[in-house]
Amino acid sequence: MAPLSPLAPTLIPFLDRYLPPTTKVNSETGLNTKLPFVTLTYAQSLDSRISKAPGVQTVISHLETKTMTHYIRSKHDAILIGIGTFLADDPGLNCRFQSPMEQKVHLIRPVIIDPTFQLGAKYETSRLRKTAEEGLGLPPIVVVDSLVLNQNPQINTFCQKHRIILIDLDRNSEARFVWEDVFAELGRQTLNSVMVEGGASIIESLLSCATSNEDTHLINSLIITIGPVFLGKSGVEVSPMNELRLSEVNWWKGIRDSVVCARLNKQDHRS
Amino acid sequence: MAPLSPLAPTLIPFLDRYLPPTTKVNSETGLNTKLPFVTLTYAQSLDSRISKAPGVQTVISHLETKTMTHYIRSKHDAILIGIGTFLADDPGLNCRFQSPMEQKVHLIRPVIIDPTFQLGAKYETSRLRKTAEEGLGLPPIVVVDSLVLNQNPQINTFCQKHRIILIDLDRNSEARFVWEDVFAELGRQTLNSVMVEGGASIIESLLSCATSNEDTHLINSLIITIGPVFLGKSGVEVSPMNELRLSEVNWWKGIRDSVVCARLNKQDHRS
Ligand SMILES: NC(=O)c1ccc[n+]([C@@H]2O[C@H](COP(=O)([O-])OP(=O)(O)OC[C@H]3O[C@@H](n4cnc5c(N)ncnc54)[C@H](OP(=O)(O)O)[C@@H]3O)[C@@H](O)[C@H]2O)c1
Ligand SMILES: NC(=O)c1ccc[n+]([C@@H]2O[C@H](COP(=O)([O-])OP(=O)(O)OC[C@H]3O[C@@H](n4cnc5c(N)ncnc54)[C@H](OP(=O)(O)O)[C@@H]3O)[C@@H](O)[C@H]2O)c1
Repeated sequence: MAPLSPLAPTLIPFLDRYLPPTTKVNSETGLNTKLPFVTLTYAQSLDSRISKAPGVQTVISHLETKTMTHYIRSKHDAILIGIGTFLADDPGLNCRFQSPMEQKVHLIRPVIIDPTFQLGAKYETSRLRKTAEEGLGLPPIVVVDSLVLNQNPQINTFCQKHRIILIDLDRNSEARFVWEDVFAELGRQTLNSVMVEGGASIIESLLSCATSNEDTHLINSLIITIGPVFLGKSGVEVSPMNELRLSEVNWWKGIRDSVVCARLNKQDHRS
Repeated sequence: MAPLSPLAPTLIPFLDRYLPPTTKVNSETGLNTKLPFVTLTYAQSLDSRISKAPGVQTVISHLETKTMTHYIRSKHDAILIGIGTFLADDPGLNCRFQSPMEQKVHLIRPVIIDPTFQLGAKYETSRLRKTAEEGLGLPPIVVVDSLVLNQNPQINTFCQKHRIILIDLDRNSEARFVWEDVFAELGRQTLNSVMVEGGASIIESLLSCATSNEDTHLINSLIITIGPVFLGKSGVEVSPMNELRLSEVNWWKGIRDSVVCARLNKQDHRS
């Protein structure tokens, strides 16, 4: 695990207004306080690929923006990914950024969207488990399909053994969890802020729900790192179903990458 | 035709080293001086779409980066597009940027890649023709397939009438012109610099040839504007066949868009 580089000082003011508020209630922004603050963040190539092929972990961002990712993690209660990313990347999902003012590292709760509980096959040998057992991270919350859980009660035993927290939800007619249900459940676990990191299927599902949902601010901020590379047609692409306009757009320019922060623009959600 | 906004002064030094040299021979960069200097430039969304649907002209960039495009045009002898863009957008393809120091507007030569001469059907009512006839632009060079021209001699008559310059070339086994032939022909027309503006098929073909061709620096600069919007899955995508790494990367941040300038990195051309 390569050590992080120091955080570029200009990133702190740049990111500030896109990070979760320190108090949960925020009447000014009209946030639905029953739901956590959701930050969607990922690194993409110029041709909006987040990896060079399905299942191939790909370095897109410079070490400097990797440090930024850990800084952003330090400002969130939970980090959410899909099972595809867990299986492809074996991520640690902890926070390695430590501010000079703080005594200890921030413990962020991993959340894995895993309708059919594919985690079981790989968890025992995973970095996620190792990180949690060494006290450098927390055991994950896994969101599974209620039917799958009913039919496989051994999932409960497995999770108890590993201190994994299970959330079971119904999937809709398109075999998808409803994001509002997912975030409401995470809110009930007293997670007030969730950083969604990927992969492609999760990002597209969340962005597409943002385009179809007029009433709920599910995504509060968007932070995208763009690495100056083309990954090409066989890469794993991120593009939502419909057009999506952004507002409060701000760019940061790093040594090699660029970072864009924005909010979703409610007015233009329809394509 | 909306007037251009003033050029952002910071764009001049930012773009400088990515624009064609004022003298053609450049032994330092090892440019093949038989070929013109080629700048590939276009505007894309975050999800690397250059229009929201095939044939739908889409505003992606802010007026400020539109002005930049006309400034870049003022530094090139020719501007190249594919017939798809001509048919979809009815572009003027002239240069509307005028530096305060110059007496008259720069006349840039439009070049249209049009293997089967589809231009004929729309040229008479096009902005391209109007602009040329009003003296605000030049009549185009059209690159057609030699066989098509042989079989349709009336194309010659049509072009003579409209002062259109014809270049006829063979297509390869994939029904494509070889880019080196195209640029060599343009060089013979004393065009020392060519700005390639689109559309998707042209950009992908040129980028893909860059990834397969190890010996020739066909693309000298890349200038991509990124507009902070998602155009979605049904948009017209730009992504090359293979991975492509960039070097000498530099970002400029505008009011709303970001612009990246770079060169193609020869070392990493193979995927
Ligand atoms: N560059 C970056 O920042 C970054 C970050 C993370 C991951 N990645 C890359 O992304 C790739 C993995 O992407 P991926 O798309 O394969 O996997 P993924 O998005 O991590 O996970 C896919 C799984 O999530 C499920 N899912 C998504 N939305 C759902 C919803 N609303 N309800 C229920 N289930 C839902 C999918 O269900 P279905 O099977 O039903 O579709 C699928 O089982 C890897 O190559 C990884 O390296 C890159
Ligand atoms: N945002 C921007 O900056 C921007 C700029 C320009 C255009 N656009 C958009 O792009 C879209 C048009 O894109 P498009 O892909 O349809 O059209 P296009 O790229 O302008 O033109 C397509 C034509 O070029 C031919 N072609 C491409 N490479 C060739 C090669 N090496 N040799 C011979 N022929 C070649 C294609 O031949 P085949 O038929 O054989 O494939 C096809 O006939 C429009 O929606 C337009 O608005 C956006």
